[in-house]
Amino acid sequence: MSRLDAGLSRRHLIGVGAGAAAAGLVAGAGGAYAAGLGHDDAIASAAVAAGSDQVVPFRGAHQAGIITPAQDRMHFVALDVVTKDPRELRELLMAWTGAAERMVAGAEAAPGGVIGGGPHKAPADTGEAFDLDASNLTITIGYGPALFDGRFGLAGRKPSPLRELPGFVGDDLDPARSGGDLCIQACANDPQVAVHAVRNLVRLGFGTVSVRWSQLGFGRTSATTRTQTTPRNLFGFKDGTANIRAEDTEALDRHVWVQPADVTGSAAWLAGGSYLVARRIRMHVEVWDRSTLQEQQDVIGRDKGEGAPLGQQSELDPVDFDAKGADGRPAIPMDAHVRLAHESRLGGIRILRRGYNFTDGSDGLGHLDAGLFFVAFMRDPHEQFVPMQRALAARDALSEYIEHTGSGLFACPPGLDDGDDWGRQLFG
Amino acid sequence: MSRLDAGLSRRHLIGVGAGAAAAGLVAGAGGAYAAGLGHDDAIASAAVAAGSDQVVPFRGAHQAGIITPAQDRMHFVALDVVTKDPRELRELLMAWTGAAERMVAGAEAAPGGVIGGGPHKAPADTGEAFDLDASNLTITIGYGPALFDGRFGLAGRKPSPLRELPGFVGDDLDPARSGGDLCIQACANDPQVAVHAVRNLVRLGFGTVSVRWSQLGFGRTSATTRTQTTPRNLFGFKDGTANIRAEDTEALDRHVWVQPADVTGSAAWLAGGSYLVARRIRMHVEVWDRSTLQEQQDVIGRDKGEGAPLGQQSELDPVDFDAKGADGRPAIPMDAHVRLAHESRLGGIRILRRGYNFTDGSDGLGHLDAGLFFVAFMRDPHEQFVPMQRALAARDALSEYIEHTGSGLFACPPGLDDGDDWGRQLFG
Repeated sequence: MSRLDAGLSRRHLIGVGAGAAAAGLVAGAGGAYAAGLGHDDAIASAAVAAGSDQVVPFRGAHQAGIITPAQDRMHFVALDVVTKDPRELRELLMAWTGAAERMVAGAEAAPGGVIGGGPHKAPADTGEAFDLDASNLTITIGYGPALFDGRFGLAGRKPSPLRELPGFVGDDLDPARSGGDLCIQACANDPQVAVHAVRNLVRLGFGTVSVRWSQLGFGRTSATTRTQTTPRNLFGFKDGTANIRAEDTEALDRHVWVQPADVTGSAAWLAGGSYLVARRIRMHVEVWDRSTLQEQQDVIGRDKGEGAPLGQQSELDPVDFDAKGADGRPAIPMDAHVRLAHESRLGGIRILRRGYNFTDGSDGLGHLDAGLFFVAFMRDPHEQFVPMQRALAARDALSEYIEHTGSGLFACPPGLDDGDDWGRQLFG
Repeated sequence: MSRLDAGLSRRHLIGVGAGAAAAGLVAGAGGAYAAGLGHDDAIASAAVAAGSDQVVPFRGAHQAGIITPAQDRMHFVALDVVTKDPRELRELLMAWTGAAERMVAGAEAAPGGVIGGGPHKAPADTGEAFDLDASNLTITIGYGPALFDGRFGLAGRKPSPLRELPGFVGDDLDPARSGGDLCIQACANDPQVAVHAVRNLVRLGFGTVSVRWSQLGFGRTSATTRTQTTPRNLFGFKDGTANIRAEDTEALDRHVWVQPADVTGSAAWLAGGSYLVARRIRMHVEVWDRSTLQEQQDVIGRDKGEGAPLGQQSELDPVDFDAKGADGRPAIPMDAHVRLAHESRLGGIRILRRGYNFTDGSDGLGHLDAGLFFVAFMRDPHEQFVPMQRALAARDALSEYIEHTGSGLFACPPGLDDGDDWGRQLFG
């Protein structure tokens, strides 16, 4: 692990590794590969570390990718376990730990990498991120309710809040975009790095797991944005203004991290973890785009330009639900999204949102298939997401313009200590 | 046009526009919008121009987005015309010209923008790129063969090479991902900017055109890549090494730009334009990933690490088809992709490739749906792409690992002179 801790990027590896490869080719097929510089040697001999902004630490009290500042891109995949052998699953989780730690550090998925295994083996890494930086890659794992159904001897370790979400008014869930035994959320500033990470983990799982669904998402490109403004969703509104801040540790302990007292006995493995709720929210942008600015602002409860709560002036001004407009009516309508989703209306409920916009081609009906891939982390989905979504689905003015087309619930374990792996952590 | 020429970004507009919006809201609903600062005024009063690397000029001898250095992201959309009235189509093309020119400069799609139209109108821009830079956005338009079928009085203006591509061995084309009366290619370094551009053009076309299919693509993120290496495709190989260079004007005139002598009479409008061939190429990455490094390198004809032609040492070394390996056999196998696709084997044929990688979720069979969205520009598709693809489809070792699942052919008109628009250019 020590070499990876240095945060070496693939960029530094290629100068050494490629020389070996070229030498191998000049010498003809084969021989020089075996004798040549192995990829781990290349790691050892690379002297320059990548900028610290490029590597997010893999180990710690909590998994990365939850309170990590949102990267620009996401590739999310839900998988089903196809083996019946718990040992195979446990071994895969151990292998995934090693591969994830390597990739997060900017190295290839496995020792040997793209070319170090020689000509007669399948490369240990698929190669499309060979010369790319770590790009703030985070890899976050989660386990769905179905994983604890008894197939793998995990029934006793199931945390009680990890039970399927109920249906909500207006849901139009596609089974092909919902559920899954496991999930992996890969986020990075470069989509090719995120896609590479998921692909190489999926590949390691061949015969043990199978892709159930996957989703790409994007936000604004931070490198081309000169000031850090709140990103906008595809309705054109700032999204995430009132989110829990990463430095608000008290709020995180209260709303996001599973506390030791929440999970007793054999479910204690989840303490320090969090529940991930994913919802693929199709936005009917064509209908939205034909509505007036006032209708849009009334639906959201904020102004479109600045993002200020209606009746206020700046994005970060506190929401005043009692403010009246010139006509004497509430400045923020009673069915506005910010009103219904606000903690003050939900008995103090808050969640950590970490969603991405998506555009998945067209819907076959002349429209773009676009929306928000909502990802949120919380301490208990049935105490937080469920009542929140019930309130929104029933009354939110926004419901007219959106449709939930996919759904997933996963328990994300806490971070790993040195030497630990996801297999041992889950199976004990 | 003069104000847009300054290359103002949305970022600079928001400071002025948002103040007006906030004032409007504080004063209550309505009044202040009408009296307040219109968006064009905001453009006029913004003093700071965006960095020149953020705005690609819209007008010129050729359309941008063809020889423009590839941006990081692409959103490509094919549309069908649903009106029967040629005037509506012509008017839309004129409106698109104005909107495209504004967005490329970093402004909103239409005067009034996100908030300047007041509360009782639908905003003239959808807003999700409100605070983003121009991000090197280019918008490139193309016309499919079907547009000239007589519905719009354009049959006489059809350039003769604009006829449907033939089928190729191994094609598995999905009609829902193929064809179209029109196409728009939007490329930018920020996906949200590219998606915003397509969406706002589609929106302007409501009732006149309808989305047939759309495709998102990505490359490496140049801002996080410290040196300009050739990007890699999802087979992990460098892709684009031997492409035509933007500064090689002689090769461009010979292989990419339609020459005046090519299009006589009523098809002369296409002189200075180019044909765009789009192919959605699904890559069977799972099969590929299980093949050996040598098999992969033999299929491509280059080494994976460096990208050098087999038998050579560096990426840019000339391809030597006569080189022999240590075993006396050709270093580059007879069915290798670089051999079959090389101009020397195709009677001097070259094309300008400008493709992007894609990952569109999963295929429902446990695999990622990933590949290359191949986009290429050329002077005559039937003299260039067709013979090239025939040779590849029949013999290319790569064919075992890929499948063409979508296809489109479009004639991209030349660039616009000052004051001209796409409607007048096409209809004359």
